Amino acid sequence: MVVVMESHATEAQIESVIARLKELGFSTHRSTGVTRTVIGAIGDKTGLDERDLQVMDGVHEVVRISEPYKLVSRTFRSESTVIKIKGVEIGGEKVVVMAGPCSVESRDQIMAIAECVSKAGATVLRGGAFKPRSSPYSFQGMGEEGLRLLREAADRFGMLVVTEVMDRSQIPLITEYTDIFQTGARNMQNFNLLRDLGKARKPVFLKRGMAATIEEWLMAAEYVMSEGNHQVMLCERGIRTFETYTRNTLDISAIPVVHKLSHLPVIADPSHGTGIRDKVLPMARAAVAAGADGVMIEVHNDPPHALSDGAQALLPEQFEELMRELRIIVPALNRTI
Amino acid sequence: MVVVMESHATEAQIESVIARLKELGFSTHRSTGVTRTVIGAIGDKTGLDERDLQVMDGVHEVVRISEPYKLVSRTFRSESTVIKIKGVEIGGEKVVVMAGPCSVESRDQIMAIAECVSKAGATVLRGGAFKPRSSPYSFQGMGEEGLRLLREAADRFGMLVVTEVMDRSQIPLITEYTDIFQTGARNMQNFNLLRDLGKARKPVFLKRGMAATIEEWLMAAEYVMSEGNHQVMLCERGIRTFETYTRNTLDISAIPVVHKLSHLPVIADPSHGTGIRDKVLPMARAAVAAGADGVMIEVHNDPPHALSDGAQALLPEQFEELMRELRIIVPALNRTI
Amino acid sequence: MVVVMESHATEAQIESVIARLKELGFSTHRSTGVTRTVIGAIGDKTGLDERDLQVMDGVHEVVRISEPYKLVSRTFRSESTVIKIKGVEIGGEKVVVMAGPCSVESRDQIMAIAECVSKAGATVLRGGAFKPRSSPYSFQGMGEEGLRLLREAADRFGMLVVTEVMDRSQIPLITEYTDIFQTGARNMQNFNLLRDLGKARKPVFLKRGMAATIEEWLMAAEYVMSEGNHQVMLCERGIRTFETYTRNTLDISAIPVVHKLSHLPVIADPSHGTGIRDKVLPMARAAVAAGADGVMIEVHNDPPHALSDGAQALLPEQFEELMRELRIIVPALNRTI
Amino acid sequence: MVVVMESHATEAQIESVIARLKELGFSTHRSTGVTRTVIGAIGDKTGLDERDLQVMDGVHEVVRISEPYKLVSRTFRSESTVIKIKGVEIGGEKVVVMAGPCSVESRDQIMAIAECVSKAGATVLRGGAFKPRSSPYSFQGMGEEGLRLLREAADRFGMLVVTEVMDRSQIPLITEYTDIFQTGARNMQNFNLLRDLGKARKPVFLKRGMAATIEEWLMAAEYVMSEGNHQVMLCERGIRTFETYTRNTLDISAIPVVHKLSHLPVIADPSHGTGIRDKVLPMARAAVAAGADGVMIEVHNDPPHALSDGAQALLPEQFEELMRELRIIVPALNRTI
Repeated sequence: MVVVMESHATEAQIESVIARLKELGFSTHRSTGVTRTVIGAIGDKTGLDERDLQVMDGVHEVVRISEPYKLVSRTFRSESTVIKIKGVEIGGEKVVVMAGPCSVESRDQIMAIAECVSKAGATVLRGGAFKPRSSPYSFQGMGEEGLRLLREAADRFGMLVVTEVMDRSQIPLITEYTDIFQTGARNMQNFNLLRDLGKARKPVFLKRGMAATIEEWLMAAEYVMSEGNHQVMLCERGIRTFETYTRNTLDISAIPVVHKLSHLPVIADPSHGTGIRDKVLPMARAAVAAGADGVMIEVHNDPPHALSDGAQALLPEQFEELMRELRIIVPALNRTI
Repeated sequence: MVVVMESHATEAQIESVIARLKELGFSTHRSTGVTRTVIGAIGDKTGLDERDLQVMDGVHEVVRISEPYKLVSRTFRSESTVIKIKGVEIGGEKVVVMAGPCSVESRDQIMAIAECVSKAGATVLRGGAFKPRSSPYSFQGMGEEGLRLLREAADRFGMLVVTEVMDRSQIPLITEYTDIFQTGARNMQNFNLLRDLGKARKPVFLKRGMAATIEEWLMAAEYVMSEGNHQVMLCERGIRTFETYTRNTLDISAIPVVHKLSHLPVIADPSHGTGIRDKVLPMARAAVAAGADGVMIEVHNDPPHALSDGAQALLPEQFEELMRELRIIVPALNRTI
Repeated sequence: MVVVMESHATEAQIESVIARLKELGFSTHRSTGVTRTVIGAIGDKTGLDERDLQVMDGVHEVVRISEPYKLVSRTFRSESTVIKIKGVEIGGEKVVVMAGPCSVESRDQIMAIAECVSKAGATVLRGGAFKPRSSPYSFQGMGEEGLRLLREAADRFGMLVVTEVMDRSQIPLITEYTDIFQTGARNMQNFNLLRDLGKARKPVFLKRGMAATIEEWLMAAEYVMSEGNHQVMLCERGIRTFETYTRNTLDISAIPVVHKLSHLPVIADPSHGTGIRDKVLPMARAAVAAGADGVMIEVHNDPPHALSDGAQALLPEQFEELMRELRIIVPALNRTI
Repeated sequence: MVVVMESHATEAQIESVIARLKELGFSTHRSTGVTRTVIGAIGDKTGLDERDLQVMDGVHEVVRISEPYKLVSRTFRSESTVIKIKGVEIGGEKVVVMAGPCSVESRDQIMAIAECVSKAGATVLRGGAFKPRSSPYSFQGMGEEGLRLLREAADRFGMLVVTEVMDRSQIPLITEYTDIFQTGARNMQNFNLLRDLGKARKPVFLKRGMAATIEEWLMAAEYVMSEGNHQVMLCERGIRTFETYTRNTLDISAIPVVHKLSHLPVIADPSHGTGIRDKVLPMARAAVAAGADGVMIEVHNDPPHALSDGAQALLPEQFEELMRELRIIVPALNRTI
């Protein structure tokens, strides 16, 4: 950390800052520039709030020079994490495709969709049983019956299951059915939930909050990892911008940025990232071209009658077309699909 | 709802949209303009996702013409809600001042602060016992012991208690100690929590999410009210903007906007809204001048050694100065304090 | 346009709105719903400010149902515009690559770079002679000498020239040297400049403003086209978001969105869109995979000593690598490069 | 400036950075922490692009420790600037009120409005003669005739004139009529215009760009001042946020922030800052309560028939009411009006 003093700071103010830094456990180094005194503070104080120094008299600015996270960082672990679940590798050479409906709606529906996406090349089946909806008057999911159907469909077609956990109280139930816990964008900073998932034994699929910086997203992963669960994959699902034509703006550049800062795998969700069916194909291609380790795609056999998010679901034949296009693109990244 | 067709939409496409609207329970009205056909849809379908129509062939745009909320709206209830708790009225003629430390840290601390803010005119004591922190390595609150101390201090000085509930599992415990449940910005769309607070018997102090629109904030209040608890007050606590000098940008204009759209009281939190002590006074004055029904102010007797958010806490004498200034301002709004 | 009345609007208020709409030249249609009266207004009033109706007594909301632009719209012209300049087609089947340094710095520099990018497959040479810089103390460009050198280099290697015009007063000078006028993000709403470019005889390369919506960007193109110049290409160059790791966030989803709304070609600029060299390759691949009609790439033979934006310039060998990767990707879109 | 190396940076990489810093004219100081080497760079290099160092091998982060501006800073000049024009002081003890129509529309209109606002206490008359409009099909202003009428009305009632200059070519004409040059939000980074205003002899009223950070806004003022014109006042007029209910979000907190960073006066424009008449009063009160040195208010004698922005214009009686309210508030800040 570096504390930059005002150009007119008094000697007493400078000494007061140095004393405070020592009280906080830092060793300090003072250097005097052309116009300002700068105090370097050496020590490891992850929980410190820099503003406590910022408000001291004579202080111009406090600059943190290390990230607030540790376990998620490439500094901590330089090789990329590959999460292995029943033969599927996430974060490896192969681009992973996760697909399925927004919500599980019936046995017929989930069976039909699982068969189609599995044949086309998806290895993970997605589907919601508990749905966070912005209106209290909207469909809220099938609950446990949805979980059971999702598991049955995945098993029938040799797929993994990923499904959302909305609340820490749901962990014991969902753990019986799923292979991967998904957390939603609105829960990215539900710290109690993150902590409890850190004590769970299954991988976590952590969606980025819609207004979160990449650092905040990595801090959320740090919460999970700090409790012992290192099997975290990060999902870019679109951020809020001024643009209203699309529901969200899929932040493709987050993919190479996270790959540089962290060893964790990154998946893109162009369905939520755009909210509109005909934008899903171009954005899925873009995500893979930018280096995503996988994509999560909503597919529905009858979108006009879907109980949630039908407008962003691909039709089965569009999903097959997407798989064909992605197979052309991946060699540019020395990957397979 | 109005469905605007493309200028080149075919008759078959128009009829298909009309058929779909009828299937959804709307009555329809078709009108043909200079360049486009427009279909008006009459009926009450709060849970509908407009995108389901938007993706139909030939549709140019779908425009919702009513708000997605009901109970929070001035259309539903035209007179302003006044919440009465043990003789304190929130939303009435008097501007309510809530004050206290970020976290309860010790008996001495909370007693000293409660005494000071009570003498200066605050009627509600704030203080956190469970703290949502962006780093897993930061102070997380005193837990139940903090709640006990907070209650004791409030009772000693004849104040109400407001404190944060982070998780639905904490409701039974916190309900024993608090007068008002506070929900944090990061939990604004924790729908399970909102629903359970809707079943609780005490008022809810609902902070706006840091990237939430006003409509989303009102929808969160709708979640609480739809379960039967109509005692909701809304708290503007700063939104995220591109500006990094302040921690957040206190959205003062949300105050008159919410007052127009809803009958619920609006409180401003300039402490979190700015994150910097010397910005709290001007922004508290501004909030009251804009018509806020109250302010929530962080005060600490020893900010440099506060365990959380010391940088934004007022010193006792600054709080007294603020009260003096607010007393000058409120007559401009025909209010008292 | 649709005017939605408050549920408690009086008959007099409704009639007053209808009278005002007629005064403004609209024909009207009144329909009465369950809770509200809705007034449809038919007529073409592009310059109208909807807020004039919004503030009338009893009005709940005013909804525009047509875009404010005409000439840029696919409704106006359904087939995609292909701009042809000396044998190069922009917006056609072939993906166009524009490359060169941020600033022209010397004859040797521009010659070396032009040779390298031309050999690798670029057909348009970029380079700045007048530089808009956020600090008045930074390098401001070589001026006319830079234009002369840029033209010479382009001619030597059979390339087109694209260069920025900062001010309407520069148009006569720059028109002597360039094939395409580039306008900068900060000038997207410099309406006098746009108008004068609309009277010029050469194509315009219109960068999106860093906080502009797609609609505002299209309105800027409308300014140019409304003066008679229909040769406009749109350049996505990154928008401002809360993320600070990258300089801007390249909005890849704008590419398919603009292609749906408008017939104009769309180019992506991943160099400004990220601001960091090692993010340019993945984002250029993503842009092309999403359907961009071209990319603009900054390349420098000695980036550490570049006078501007060296940090985002590709090295010649990186540019060659990018071209190899793009050649793998384009068949997925049935295009060539 | 501080260059933070990666924890695994090699000695050669560290030395290479030090060599580069020396080449750039800095003296350096190396310090070795627990996990990282940090290099302090001492020297004054205002025009440097930190990214040039950021992309060097082994560099983790580059941190600027001084502002990029000088002349606008309180470090450069600690006492507040008071701009004196014909007996009116801007930035002094008295809060200045600027008022008038959006556009000058006729002699009768401007005379009537000038009389009303002058009687109520305004000392500066605003009015546009050249209007930047987002649609090419909207009213674009009366041009020189508008300037002439504005001057005549101001002289008649003993007021100053402030009016917008859209383009550097308009400076000679407008200088004949105005007392203060206003620059619009969309021109905040029109660097050629700023530079030319820096050579003009009259004060500049510099509106903040709608997505500009405070630092960028101050850099725009630095452009003007670096050419010799130190009479700059800053106008907060609303920033773009996700909220769509108001046209912009007036950033009240910018007022105390700018007062801390700079010695220049700050004016608020709640008319453009909200875009809706009934939000102007509360936001004007808030701006003054937060410490603004003045407010600019749009007033119209017949808003429904205004040629631009009628929806945000106050009626004469509302303006008088606002003046009454502000007179109650200003003593809380030890000011007069």
